Amino acid sequence: MPTVSELAAKIGATVAGDGSAQVNSCSTLEEAAPGQISFLSNPKYEKLLATTRASAVIAGLHIKNSKVTLLQTADPYFAFMQAMVLLHGHRKHPHSGIHPQAYVDPTAQVGKNSVLYPGVFVGPGARVGSDCILYPNSVVYDNCILGDRVILHAGSVIGHDGFGFATYKGTHHKIPQVGNVIVEDDVEIGANVALQRATLGSTIIGKGSKLSDLISVGHAARIGPGGLLVSLVGIAGSTKIGHHSIIGGQAGVVGHVTVGDNVTIAARSGVVNDVPDQTLMMGAPATPAPHGRKSLMLMTQLPELLERIRTLEQQVEELAIEKRDSEIK
Amino acid sequence: MPTVSELAAKIGATVAGDGSAQVNSCSTLEEAAPGQISFLSNPKYEKLLATTRASAVIAGLHIKNSKVTLLQTADPYFAFMQAMVLLHGHRKHPHSGIHPQAYVDPTAQVGKNSVLYPGVFVGPGARVGSDCILYPNSVVYDNCILGDRVILHAGSVIGHDGFGFATYKGTHHKIPQVGNVIVEDDVEIGANVALQRATLGSTIIGKGSKLSDLISVGHAARIGPGGLLVSLVGIAGSTKIGHHSIIGGQAGVVGHVTVGDNVTIAARSGVVNDVPDQTLMMGAPATPAPHGRKSLMLMTQLPELLERIRTLEQQVEELAIEKRDSEIK
Amino acid sequence: MPTVSELAAKIGATVAGDGSAQVNSCSTLEEAAPGQISFLSNPKYEKLLATTRASAVIAGLHIKNSKVTLLQTADPYFAFMQAMVLLHGHRKHPHSGIHPQAYVDPTAQVGKNSVLYPGVFVGPGARVGSDCILYPNSVVYDNCILGDRVILHAGSVIGHDGFGFATYKGTHHKIPQVGNVIVEDDVEIGANVALQRATLGSTIIGKGSKLSDLISVGHAARIGPGGLLVSLVGIAGSTKIGHHSIIGGQAGVVGHVTVGDNVTIAARSGVVNDVPDQTLMMGAPATPAPHGRKSLMLMTQLPELLERIRTLEQQVEELAIEKRDSEIK
Repeated sequence: MPTVSELAAKIGATVAGDGSAQVNSCSTLEEAAPGQISFLSNPKYEKLLATTRASAVIAGLHIKNSKVTLLQTADPYFAFMQAMVLLHGHRKHPHSGIHPQAYVDPTAQVGKNSVLYPGVFVGPGARVGSDCILYPNSVVYDNCILGDRVILHAGSVIGHDGFGFATYKGTHHKIPQVGNVIVEDDVEIGANVALQRATLGSTIIGKGSKLSDLISVGHAARIGPGGLLVSLVGIAGSTKIGHHSIIGGQAGVVGHVTVGDNVTIAARSGVVNDVPDQTLMMGAPATPAPHGRKSLMLMTQLPELLERIRTLEQQVEELAIEKRDSEIK
Repeated sequence: MPTVSELAAKIGATVAGDGSAQVNSCSTLEEAAPGQISFLSNPKYEKLLATTRASAVIAGLHIKNSKVTLLQTADPYFAFMQAMVLLHGHRKHPHSGIHPQAYVDPTAQVGKNSVLYPGVFVGPGARVGSDCILYPNSVVYDNCILGDRVILHAGSVIGHDGFGFATYKGTHHKIPQVGNVIVEDDVEIGANVALQRATLGSTIIGKGSKLSDLISVGHAARIGPGGLLVSLVGIAGSTKIGHHSIIGGQAGVVGHVTVGDNVTIAARSGVVNDVPDQTLMMGAPATPAPHGRKSLMLMTQLPELLERIRTLEQQVEELAIEKRDSEIK
Repeated sequence: MPTVSELAAKIGATVAGDGSAQVNSCSTLEEAAPGQISFLSNPKYEKLLATTRASAVIAGLHIKNSKVTLLQTADPYFAFMQAMVLLHGHRKHPHSGIHPQAYVDPTAQVGKNSVLYPGVFVGPGARVGSDCILYPNSVVYDNCILGDRVILHAGSVIGHDGFGFATYKGTHHKIPQVGNVIVEDDVEIGANVALQRATLGSTIIGKGSKLSDLISVGHAARIGPGGLLVSLVGIAGSTKIGHHSIIGGQAGVVGHVTVGDNVTIAARSGVVNDVPDQTLMMGAPATPAPHGRKSLMLMTQLPELLERIRTLEQQVEELAIEKRDSEIK
């Protein structure tokens, strides 16, 4: 059990206050007890520093005069991550390797140290890298490829057939979907996600990307390295998203467009065109901020805009009447 | 097989008409045959009273002069529920207890009379209460807790890792997610729902809440008792929803806000701020009704608003020209 | 291995250029190598004709002077589908019939040539037609019916209980859901879809409809034959959608409305009223195009509309001041 000072040294933080207490775990500011450390990164919760019972709190460099001992660092969230790994570590799995209630096709490959939970399916010709974790009932269709250290949470589906039909006289004819999905190294995918295989070629989730839950990625879409996709996002087919882009919850991007690098798409936005690098998109349809932010704000002020138009109409009417009256005189 | 009168007595309704027919089941107004009862709660379908072949119809107290026998009550939907339970009962399961094709970790606990279907996973240290029903392929991660009489429909995932990453120089580092999910008594959760565990502490679904399908609840969010969440809703992390709140389909609530008690959030709304008790929120971004309703309505009238602005511009231009002309004269 | 000319004859296309090369597979314009054929249907990619290494490209009749050999036809996407079937065929399954890790209730029926993957559940009294494919972990609840040639992708759930509760004094009482889901012939359903059973009667997905991923269909809704539903769509209970309707991604339709035949609902639209046949709906709330399209466009121009209102206010103010001044004089 490290002391606060020992922990500080390991996570690159400076102790402000008494660093002698031993700490064994992390907790929230509200729920922490002595012997626990907590963290502050969202300024909304700063006032809880006065009341927390934590032995110490990881916080930014700007906090002064704290009653509770601080572990101060320029990046408290990153330091908190390190403390969590040191004090708690990552999940221990109840078994190693492929659970007997999983199904791995004889022609599929699974790398070393990968853990496949009950109900997992890995289809013919699929390749799962090393140190992967496939949680219960996640599914990898035939010929799809997962890199190393990939995590699939429960119920996620990789590589089912995309929405590919040729409609002829009212009948939708299925196009064989002979491409696959490539999920690169260090990707984590949440629960009940659905990543369609490409018709030809590959749908690609770039290295180190993190997808939350209930996300739909269409056939032959590509998410660049380091992407962050929040829950309920929809990316339509053949769209390309650059590296380190962030797509907020319930946002959507139409098919066949190109979104640049380091783009942020706000929650619930609807992107219908190409997006240049380093742009913040807002609204549905989305436009770049600050214009998009103003549009969104004005959507909540339409009754007030209507009032201003009505007032103008009355004033103009009055001016016109006075005009006419003065002309008659 | 009860008569209409006997059924009426059991569900607290008054018979208007002949109550002697025997009834064995329920059906819709359109499809009912003699021997069946039906119900009317949505006024949209009132005209079907004239044509239904049902032996009797459960209806509100305001209906007069019905050709078909009525079972009248102040709350016809509640009476219909009672009739359904009496005449049909709840689902009989094809097996009792834990199906051999389910996986329950040796360190997990499952209460008495709970039914776990094939493909269910209950992880290490998890606790499932009594009289629960876990439908096929539903998943309860390690250390999560379900109360008594909880129902999980197929494919729902309780307690996977939330979206917790500390980004440092472009790499997203995983924060161990050591909290859990607590699903309180009498909660029912639809199909393919995803409830993230808290990083620290608990994500909580309050007693008696009902969640429909494909819903995402973020880490450490709390849904108060008696909540109703419709399909495709997204609740971001750390947000707190009060008791008996209703959240319509495809609506979203951002993280770290507090939504009060008895709040209704209309379908497809986007809530970005705290919401006081007893408020009806509409629009995206959402504002309280009636303002929010007006905003929504005006979103469909923007072409007309533009026309009014154009007309004003012409009128003002004409007034300005006349002004100039009169000054020149 | 057919020649380009032989393939052209089979898919009803005319060869423009040298048809003697043998072709063994299909690829994209960008990735094709000699020995492969490609296709062009989206004009956005026409410039790739100049650089593709494909032996031949399936294309429309309007393309002239192509360097690469063309297989020209009035409907290149349909011809491409035929070429894919001829050269690649549909997926070969790793087993036939019901996999031992699937669960089929003894009272359920499964037609001939149907393939049920590991983790599939088919409940009591359910009927699965002939030539169906149920991918891993898809679930068919009790008494639901799938026609012939139905495809369920992984994780999809057919016939769980809809959102049916009678609320009495703050408690939501479950109404037994005694209806079912009927999925008609030739329907394909994507991954992690959730189709609720009807309370009474049936939820129906009409013949030949194709649903993409993460779609919610409410109890007793009906989708007409030939429907196309894109990912993350929500259709609320008791709503009826006509035949050959197209519903774009993340769109929603409220409950108890009727949407006509051959209707197109644009992505992210919110439909709140009945929709007549052959209508294109846009916006949220949705209105028919071109009005709906204008409304959507104006939502991105609200800052400009505000500026025009501000300018008008200034102009009117100036006119009023001049008026007053001239009256004072």
